[in-house]
Amino acid sequence: MDAVPLPSPFRSMTLQGRTNAFNGLEIDGEAIPDEEVELRALFPSRMAQWREDGLSLIWLRVPLAKSFAIPAAVEQGFVFHHSQADYVMLTCALEPRAFIPPYATHFVGAGGVVLDSRQRLLVVNERFRGNRSEPFWKLPGGLLDPGEHLEAGVRREVLEETGIETRFDRLVVAWHNHRYQFGKSGFYMVCRLTPLTFDIRKDDFEIDDCCWMPLEEYLASPHVASFNRVIVEAAVANPTLAETVLPFYPDPDRHEFFFPPAPWPLTPETVP
Amino acid sequence: MDAVPLPSPFRSMTLQGRTNAFNGLEIDGEAIPDEEVELRALFPSRMAQWREDGLSLIWLRVPLAKSFAIPAAVEQGFVFHHSQADYVMLTCALEPRAFIPPYATHFVGAGGVVLDSRQRLLVVNERFRGNRSEPFWKLPGGLLDPGEHLEAGVRREVLEETGIETRFDRLVVAWHNHRYQFGKSGFYMVCRLTPLTFDIRKDDFEIDDCCWMPLEEYLASPHVASFNRVIVEAAVANPTLAETVLPFYPDPDRHEFFFPPAPWPLTPETVP
Repeated sequence: MDAVPLPSPFRSMTLQGRTNAFNGLEIDGEAIPDEEVELRALFPSRMAQWREDGLSLIWLRVPLAKSFAIPAAVEQGFVFHHSQADYVMLTCALEPRAFIPPYATHFVGAGGVVLDSRQRLLVVNERFRGNRSEPFWKLPGGLLDPGEHLEAGVRREVLEETGIETRFDRLVVAWHNHRYQFGKSGFYMVCRLTPLTFDIRKDDFEIDDCCWMPLEEYLASPHVASFNRVIVEAAVANPTLAETVLPFYPDPDRHEFFFPPAPWPLTPETVP
Repeated sequence: MDAVPLPSPFRSMTLQGRTNAFNGLEIDGEAIPDEEVELRALFPSRMAQWREDGLSLIWLRVPLAKSFAIPAAVEQGFVFHHSQADYVMLTCALEPRAFIPPYATHFVGAGGVVLDSRQRLLVVNERFRGNRSEPFWKLPGGLLDPGEHLEAGVRREVLEETGIETRFDRLVVAWHNHRYQFGKSGFYMVCRLTPLTFDIRKDDFEIDDCCWMPLEEYLASPHVASFNRVIVEAAVANPTLAETVLPFYPDPDRHEFFFPPAPWPLTPETVP
């Protein structure tokens, strides 16, 4: 059957894209017709053409305002690849061996070991914790913002939670962990920071309490996780990073630690 | 107007969810009606009920097979949160200050500095490179698979590309870079590995050439990136990690490096 000329309201239809270096075709939201009926009229012939052209993979970026295109694309064999708040990216592999690159796999968080010249450690007691009748002393820190440097992110989190300005010294421990939020993995980067100010102004929403605690008191406290104790010991000892087994983390498939090598005591006595 | 009793074919409709610790409601794919008309009949009253209940955030997980639910949800104010190949997660904030947790922000790749006892370095010349008339010697490596340990991932990549079995020694350099694939950030982790086998069996698809190159020859080669040269120098010197400025990376907002501190020579003479 010959192609039927499109009626005039459909002349705006495109579904055109540009090819990339991997024999893929990338289609932006602007190339999606404004009406679902136009898209559905166009999609099958375009799919046939793309197959005929020998393309390996079609990328279709659907903006929120054109979400009607998603079911139509799924009917043509598209699957989801990734999304941001305002779009979903779909892919359709036209050849079985087409390589579909993965999307981001990790979160990155950072904690700060902030020691003053009198060997006092900056610690926080979070408001949202399991047992609110007892304190649970942690290092200040949090997730990096998108595009944020580790150095900037850890200083920002420490400042937000405690009011303390710091200088970044070094990365001392990298903790790799799997099956974190949404099933993704995470790196927790422990950094040595030098305090530039000393007056605490804590974040009242997130933090119940914040103080400069003598290092020896922190390491001996029953209200501290074994992991935090060894982090701080490692950050104080401060040589290179080596893969390290922590006997109190029983599932080696889920966690991976890189610590400065001995000497620093790895003798957790209490796990809160 | 009183609620009209639902006709019998609609009795399967649920759109029920379970509340979480953050005053959110999580709705799974099974709770989405099988027919679009049922969903559209139900959605407005459910939205009103959720608002009345004082919920902060609604999570809606739409499987591929029910993608008709996406435009209907977008009409109710939902936006995309993240997706995997077989589902899209949407969110709708019912109170303006509702905190919507971010999705994964990073890729993690790893490269191996594999040195034998005669100070020869395992290097590869990738097939997909800019100028194919000249070699471009790199460290073997690649992206971690989802859920894969760094130690396992770097050994797997080295084995796949070169056929060499290795033992993991330590993480020596962490390179943080922004605006990588899909606008996300990446960490490239450089690891010291000890070879356990020596006969090269290269991956013919990805790798043009692979060899054991004397370390001095590698460091002096014009077919090596300045960054790779300093990585190898740092991995050989091998002390702690500190934030380091690389003068041949002109955009400090985009890159962040953690290297062992001096002494190791930071004198890149040629940038290929």
